[in-house]
Amino acid sequence: MNRIALLLIGVVALTGAITFMTAASGQADEGSSPIYGVKVPANYREWKLIAVDNLLVADKTDQLRAQLGNDIAIKAFEEGKVPFPDGAIIAAVHWTRIRSEDNSNVLAGPFPGAQSFVVGSPVNVQFMVKDSKRYAATGGWGFADFKGGKPGDKALHETCFPCHAPAKDRDYVFTHYAP
Amino acid sequence: MNRIALLLIGVVALTGAITFMTAASGQADEGSSPIYGVKVPANYREWKLIAVDNLLVADKTDQLRAQLGNDIAIKAFEEGKVPFPDGAIIAAVHWTRIRSEDNSNVLAGPFPGAQSFVVGSPVNVQFMVKDSKRYAATGGWGFADFKGGKPGDKALHETCFPCHAPAKDRDYVFTHYAP
Repeated sequence: MNRIALLLIGVVALTGAITFMTAASGQADEGSSPIYGVKVPANYREWKLIAVDNLLVADKTDQLRAQLGNDIAIKAFEEGKVPFPDGAIIAAVHWTRIRSEDNSNVLAGPFPGAQSFVVGSPVNVQFMVKDSKRYAATGGWGFADFKGGKPGDKALHETCFPCHAPAKDRDYVFTHYAP
Repeated sequence: MNRIALLLIGVVALTGAITFMTAASGQADEGSSPIYGVKVPANYREWKLIAVDNLLVADKTDQLRAQLGNDIAIKAFEEGKVPFPDGAIIAAVHWTRIRSEDNSNVLAGPFPGAQSFVVGSPVNVQFMVKDSKRYAATGGWGFADFKGGKPGDKALHETCFPCHAPAKDRDYVFTHYAP
């Protein structure tokens, strides 16, 4: 392989490293989470799908949610291995769940009584970034919660790790890979 | 760029073409859908996420669902362009929706009354393959419905296009790209 090809590979590798550094090693500033300094990873919306879920809280909250993973996280999920390796990032994307009148009307033909619920507006996006040294005090994970592109406050981020603690035997990750 | 680099690009392009041919031009056999001859595309589970939804039908059906797209489909969704170009493939992955006791117990701490519903078992996987010439009679789309790896029968596949007809102004695709 000649120099140009090697250079291309180098640029690709470097771009990957920069993307990860942006995500995992940002100093605490306006665009990164308190405590952990996690920024929104580039292109996370184009990561592969881990699973989907639906969260209901009394009459207040009704969300459709998707968990996406970068390639390191997806490989670990597919292999069913814990702990996740350093560099793994999981994104949890949360939307409101709303009834689709269009879909429901169409589906009610072949399926009487059918109701279709789809994604409404974005609620928030959460990230877990694995770096076993940097985040040793919190199970090796750095956490972040963004709403409209802005990170939540320190008090919110203090709740992340205690809430994930019950999933310690799954390396603090609740989500199972959907078949 | 030298010959080896060009050869690598050639191999990548050829692999993509073979994957697409497997998906879109299979003859009707045990592994492909009646009428349309669509096979299960390689690696569809690793495609990028278009959106998620939830389908309820009376007391019988309660599904969490994800729509995934190959790169051609995702590009069209991101650009908001219809009709979809030839080569676009959309996968609709359907699972049962079940209550997660583990998640619900954990979430009920910070969020009293929280209920978490997650993916249960696989129900079926559906595909729409765009080939405006081959499938000219059905809006340019070939359809497929697989359950446990086996395609549904001819009668089932006769329902696909009429059901999608109301979405004609969106090139027969119900799903909107989730932000």
